[in-house]
Amino acid sequence: MTAIDLNCDLGEAFGAWRMGEDEALLGVVSSASVACGFHAGDPSTMRRTCASAAERGVAIGAHVGYRDLAGFGRRPMRVPAAELADEITYQIAALDGFARLAGSRVSYVKPHGALYNTVAVDPEQAGALVEAVRRYDEDLAVVGLAGSAGLRIAAEQGLTAVAEAFADRAYTRRGTLVPRWEAGAVLHDPDTIVERCVTMVREKRVTAVDGTEIEFSAQTVCVHGDTPGAVEIARKVRAGLEQAALELRAFTEAG
Amino acid sequence: MTAIDLNCDLGEAFGAWRMGEDEALLGVVSSASVACGFHAGDPSTMRRTCASAAERGVAIGAHVGYRDLAGFGRRPMRVPAAELADEITYQIAALDGFARLAGSRVSYVKPHGALYNTVAVDPEQAGALVEAVRRYDEDLAVVGLAGSAGLRIAAEQGLTAVAEAFADRAYTRRGTLVPRWEAGAVLHDPDTIVERCVTMVREKRVTAVDGTEIEFSAQTVCVHGDTPGAVEIARKVRAGLEQAALELRAFTEAG
Amino acid sequence: MTAIDLNCDLGEAFGAWRMGEDEALLGVVSSASVACGFHAGDPSTMRRTCASAAERGVAIGAHVGYRDLAGFGRRPMRVPAAELADEITYQIAALDGFARLAGSRVSYVKPHGALYNTVAVDPEQAGALVEAVRRYDEDLAVVGLAGSAGLRIAAEQGLTAVAEAFADRAYTRRGTLVPRWEAGAVLHDPDTIVERCVTMVREKRVTAVDGTEIEFSAQTVCVHGDTPGAVEIARKVRAGLEQAALELRAFTEAG
Amino acid sequence: MTAIDLNCDLGEAFGAWRMGEDEALLGVVSSASVACGFHAGDPSTMRRTCASAAERGVAIGAHVGYRDLAGFGRRPMRVPAAELADEITYQIAALDGFARLAGSRVSYVKPHGALYNTVAVDPEQAGALVEAVRRYDEDLAVVGLAGSAGLRIAAEQGLTAVAEAFADRAYTRRGTLVPRWEAGAVLHDPDTIVERCVTMVREKRVTAVDGTEIEFSAQTVCVHGDTPGAVEIARKVRAGLEQAALELRAFTEAG
Repeated sequence: MTAIDLNCDLGEAFGAWRMGEDEALLGVVSSASVACGFHAGDPSTMRRTCASAAERGVAIGAHVGYRDLAGFGRRPMRVPAAELADEITYQIAALDGFARLAGSRVSYVKPHGALYNTVAVDPEQAGALVEAVRRYDEDLAVVGLAGSAGLRIAAEQGLTAVAEAFADRAYTRRGTLVPRWEAGAVLHDPDTIVERCVTMVREKRVTAVDGTEIEFSAQTVCVHGDTPGAVEIARKVRAGLEQAALELRAFTEAG
Repeated sequence: MTAIDLNCDLGEAFGAWRMGEDEALLGVVSSASVACGFHAGDPSTMRRTCASAAERGVAIGAHVGYRDLAGFGRRPMRVPAAELADEITYQIAALDGFARLAGSRVSYVKPHGALYNTVAVDPEQAGALVEAVRRYDEDLAVVGLAGSAGLRIAAEQGLTAVAEAFADRAYTRRGTLVPRWEAGAVLHDPDTIVERCVTMVREKRVTAVDGTEIEFSAQTVCVHGDTPGAVEIARKVRAGLEQAALELRAFTEAG
Repeated sequence: MTAIDLNCDLGEAFGAWRMGEDEALLGVVSSASVACGFHAGDPSTMRRTCASAAERGVAIGAHVGYRDLAGFGRRPMRVPAAELADEITYQIAALDGFARLAGSRVSYVKPHGALYNTVAVDPEQAGALVEAVRRYDEDLAVVGLAGSAGLRIAAEQGLTAVAEAFADRAYTRRGTLVPRWEAGAVLHDPDTIVERCVTMVREKRVTAVDGTEIEFSAQTVCVHGDTPGAVEIARKVRAGLEQAALELRAFTEAG
Repeated sequence: MTAIDLNCDLGEAFGAWRMGEDEALLGVVSSASVACGFHAGDPSTMRRTCASAAERGVAIGAHVGYRDLAGFGRRPMRVPAAELADEITYQIAALDGFARLAGSRVSYVKPHGALYNTVAVDPEQAGALVEAVRRYDEDLAVVGLAGSAGLRIAAEQGLTAVAEAFADRAYTRRGTLVPRWEAGAVLHDPDTIVERCVTMVREKRVTAVDGTEIEFSAQTVCVHGDTPGAVEIARKVRAGLEQAALELRAFTEAG
């Protein structure tokens, strides 16, 4: 039975400000990418999110970002590599503290927002990410865009590199994401999203935005938590995968 | 041979801003209370301070504070207990990440600035501190003012409570610190400071500001790092203790 | 014709995080108390909120708070008076920049959250607030709790002191707010809220939580923006006041 | 008599952390570029620096930067133009509040660190800077690197564009700064620095790092405040200019 992981970005509240429907989504996904306080998240949110994930058997990942609460980590920053590695170590360790309180642990690291995009193409920042993960715990996996510099470097350094697909994003014929500002970049129809996910996982291919069929392999599928109808779409994706006889399981769990 | 610990508040730089002479002081003390990024400290400073402490065999403590970089953690804040406990957990865990990278670990927790003063008298915030330490690791010691609420609660909850004395501060006849704004609150003469330290440790008493001799027991003596001549005074205190045949040793090490 | 002002706390978003229904509320109130970036608010939100208020003829006030985004300014902080005055000056000036871009200006200052409560009783922090307002512009009014230290000191220093009532909060027989954690502290029934407002304004009295009728004078009534049904209640309060032939007008406008 | 302006970056303390010798430098320069709280500076430092500058007749400029205290504004950030313009407006307005308290006003805007370098080449961020200045006050000058995109766009939009030279930096034959990491990028010998400054101002030329003589025109010369011996070098530059019969005068003052 083929297994697939569903992950969602969670714990993105900050103090009095809420974001996303964490509790509902934790009932759907198999992995939770939890914000660590640099672009979003605060200590109490981190504790609660880890506790809830652990209780439900959902794997916990450190969703690390630039130190930019005002910009939600979406503004690319040219941070010197050594400094970036230290900022990432700090975030992983802080979240791991809460994960361990809850009887779990951080089992993977996924960059957020602008850092996600930068490590996909920039070897210096990708190297900083990999270095931070490797020296913290060599058993941690790195999640990133399929085919990205980050995953390549992670694999070269002996880490588990996990390719991520996006349930609701269109792909170019080269397998990269269609930029958000282009027409058709984001899919909204739940049935289309579900169907694509099933095809991606079962047949390891996807239809690009220009109609081309491309090969495509991913070990985790990201469902978004902060868009209208997010929970409903996530539930449909899960149901669709289960109906297709695909097993939902955190990629960190042995098959 | 009687042993005593010397600790200093270190790692108080923030980004481009320096503070204190950390490298020199790490050559003098047996324990380093390292800022964790909430009132001072940044990830790279934390990594470097932990690495240097570990290399020299200096014990590492988490110097936790209020989330107030602009006020250097010196402005008392009424933080709800559960929230404060989470903020402290976050700081301990983040620092522990860097301590472990360096082959060491956080072995004690000491509150900083306004939090230090508040947990000395306020059972709610003291309880939050103790709760945060206890749930992170029951083997961590809590350092605080001799006779304070924080130490009492820590001991009641089964933690090791470590009483701290200040090398350069005057005491009232009740054993509390003379407030900084009163005359004679801070001692400046190195010889007087050294003599007091030796007496404190060897005879477990100190002369209060009004001339009274009071009983006084401490397991660690704090030397300051951010005053003019700090390194020189710290070195003299160490030399004085050694001349008095007192062994310098982190309180976290078995006797 | 008796005039009354309705004010609401607005501009409380921060970066990617939203809060309240600002646009709808700006269509209801006569004064907007706008967050200035210390406890909430960011530069783009401040610009947009000021632009929208100016366009609608709504008066703009600086809603100043403690420097504590993580705590939303709700955690009391003991900030030295001179430092607090400077932090308040900074906030007023920054907001005034955006108000002037929009062709308006800051016309009053209202403290937020924990600062609101502290200046109601603490002469030192109240003095800092008044000093900051006075030196920035003596024509600015200070808004605060009726009968509070802040208003008394503002009046003594020659500033216009504006007493505020809360549409949805219960009062004790001494005219202070019933603390939020006590039963009946917050009113939820729109009709009751509207009726109380009309009585407050027209008859300058209110029924305290113990049934006593007390004298009560306010120049502005605060409607909340961040509770469920906030807009609906605000609209009903406005309609109720208008039906009672009371004129809605910013207190900063001459009668 | 030819006039020239000397400016220095000041007010770069943050809370408990000091930087530079502001008081001494304010006795040397004719213009003070004051940090506004985003990359450095805090409200009390801003008030004190403005008060001291005003008292000495030193012109006050807003030294605006990215919102990045942890990186001291030295990490390039890709901030969307509208957002960047708002962040700059906020900083100018906040500083102007303190300048006006002191009986002066902000008379120019100079970007700091990574923002300085980015607006020199990036039309989008340069446009955001110019837009923020223009809409705040069309009489404000913009200071930047001679020949930069920022100055060109400022001039096109009708603002006064002021070219800045660096007393202690080497130039390439194209008139750009030799990058800091290259050999010979920073000059250390006071006599050489003074001689170059005099030549720059009087003869409008400078010797590039490769020996070429290039034409070079600047209306203000920046002396650094945060390097060892900064005050001594600044004083020598001033004395050298005066000996060469050049008048020291803020560029904002009419000739």
